[in-house]
Amino acid sequence: MMGPGSKAGMNRQVMVVRRARGVPTPDCFQIVDSAVPQCPAGGVLLETLCAAVDPAMRGWLSQERNYMTVSNGEVMRAHGVGRVVESQDERWVPGDLAYGWLGWQRYAAVASSALLWPVDETVAPAPVWLSVLGLNGLTAWIGLNLLGRPARGETIVVSAAAGGVGGLVGQLAAHRGLRAVGIAGGARKTELARTQLGFHAAVDYKAAAGDLGRELAGLLPDGVDIFFDNTAGPIADAVFPVLNGGARIVQCGTVAVPDWTTLPTGPRRERDILVKRLSWHGLVVFDHVARFEEAFADLKDLYRGGVLTARHDVLRGLDMAPGALGRLYDGTNNGRLMIDVAV
Amino acid sequence: MMGPGSKAGMNRQVMVVRRARGVPTPDCFQIVDSAVPQCPAGGVLLETLCAAVDPAMRGWLSQERNYMTVSNGEVMRAHGVGRVVESQDERWVPGDLAYGWLGWQRYAAVASSALLWPVDETVAPAPVWLSVLGLNGLTAWIGLNLLGRPARGETIVVSAAAGGVGGLVGQLAAHRGLRAVGIAGGARKTELARTQLGFHAAVDYKAAAGDLGRELAGLLPDGVDIFFDNTAGPIADAVFPVLNGGARIVQCGTVAVPDWTTLPTGPRRERDILVKRLSWHGLVVFDHVARFEEAFADLKDLYRGGVLTARHDVLRGLDMAPGALGRLYDGTNNGRLMIDVAV
Repeated sequence: MMGPGSKAGMNRQVMVVRRARGVPTPDCFQIVDSAVPQCPAGGVLLETLCAAVDPAMRGWLSQERNYMTVSNGEVMRAHGVGRVVESQDERWVPGDLAYGWLGWQRYAAVASSALLWPVDETVAPAPVWLSVLGLNGLTAWIGLNLLGRPARGETIVVSAAAGGVGGLVGQLAAHRGLRAVGIAGGARKTELARTQLGFHAAVDYKAAAGDLGRELAGLLPDGVDIFFDNTAGPIADAVFPVLNGGARIVQCGTVAVPDWTTLPTGPRRERDILVKRLSWHGLVVFDHVARFEEAFADLKDLYRGGVLTARHDVLRGLDMAPGALGRLYDGTNNGRLMIDVAV
Repeated sequence: MMGPGSKAGMNRQVMVVRRARGVPTPDCFQIVDSAVPQCPAGGVLLETLCAAVDPAMRGWLSQERNYMTVSNGEVMRAHGVGRVVESQDERWVPGDLAYGWLGWQRYAAVASSALLWPVDETVAPAPVWLSVLGLNGLTAWIGLNLLGRPARGETIVVSAAAGGVGGLVGQLAAHRGLRAVGIAGGARKTELARTQLGFHAAVDYKAAAGDLGRELAGLLPDGVDIFFDNTAGPIADAVFPVLNGGARIVQCGTVAVPDWTTLPTGPRRERDILVKRLSWHGLVVFDHVARFEEAFADLKDLYRGGVLTARHDVLRGLDMAPGALGRLYDGTNNGRLMIDVAV
């Protein structure tokens, strides 16, 4: 554990300095070094070990309405795992590990409400608490179980199947007795989905290009009961024709649409929704806090039981943070993207 | 009551002779006179009193996949109210009135499974069993209560507010303590919606034209919690920006989109669905048969209690049937459209 005096007593922070149109570029951020903050009254000072890089961040930085935002001049919001350095809250003592809203910064001086739960390294090492045992895991669990309402023997299609959430949905779905088919970009990711992330089959949308719809139709003669959609856009368009009557769509992300500032157009869905009696749900995991404990307990059991595998893509150091979001959109990430802050 | 020998012993039927692309035109049908049929073994022979004209019929006649279809050479499927002429099923005796799948024909020789429930003229006259106490009423009740999940004080917007289903949704919603805002075409229909169909306000989308979105935003400063959509298309597009977080969309019809043979385009909705955590449901009332009894009992109570008003637009005679569907799409109908078959 490093004390607040280490690194010449400085705190490195990644600040938001401008709004993004589309995918946030490095110039939306500025790296600032300043003194290590004091522990806030009643709060906790932590040293961040690792911090998340999430597709949701695009929305927080956009000029458009969103469920959450980060203002210019603020430290970039991110969840992370940190070690308590100093505490004025009796629930936390120095040396404890915690998961919560630490931000892209080496030291986080936070109210204790920002800390979501303790991290137990005897259950899993810190980075796993950013994937299987973090919001990714909760998102996958809640989206699949509460919004997807799966039944054994049904078929699920997951877009961005090798991504931080998609890869967990595949594993959870396979464990629940569903047939899981993934869509991912490139041979490496489809291979990963098939061999390590629970998917019975995976389609490379880049190789399929305009034939994605035909490829899915061939692979899914009995159609699709749940579509866990992380991408929207043309990939989702190719899935609609193979949806069965009564299918559930879980809208978890829109990573394939680079810019929503001007509303893009696509095929109208009202007729599909009506004729196929679809249910299409937006998923923001914070709407389901009441179910976190149940989900979390199950995720821990599944991780300990070896059912869920964590796949991480770790960037070394906060200096990598400003360019990190681009990797989620250009397809170069490989598993759950995060920043090792403690290097 | 006319016997089977009346009308010179002939049965007038409206047959389907070709598929429609878009709204079915009169040439999709052929009127055929033939002998009055025999009562089928174990079934029932009825004389039709009145028969429905429904937007859903467009789907049944289209070349596209639908949840139900009517083939060329068959009598046009329609629900109706008829009087039993002859019965080989002990549950029905001559003189009984029944509601069910009678079709666009003067005499219906049907299996008793085609008869959905008895009609009690002491509760309401026959035509009301095609509106408030028919599938329109059930559709409005189930869409509002089961898919809309309304809470007192919420705001609902209903498109095609003066239509057969929309007008009942307005009345049911107002009765449940919701603020109901209707969208309809023309001064006559918006007036009807406001004064007789329970709506607190109604917007004329024809007069508003490109300003519909602005008009709705002005009328709905607190946004919309339930959107009961009978139209899809540009009218629905104007409602999306005023939807609140967590809003429910009930997709009951798509009457504003004249042709789905080539999938029309419109604004992509994935981002709205995600960011606003929307739930968008397709409504086909037959999926909810298990709740019909409960809905039906409530609708009867509300009708008898004077809470629900029936608005009918009655065409005289089956000769009007081939042109009837066009009236639903050109906006000339005024309330629940049906055919008086017994003239």
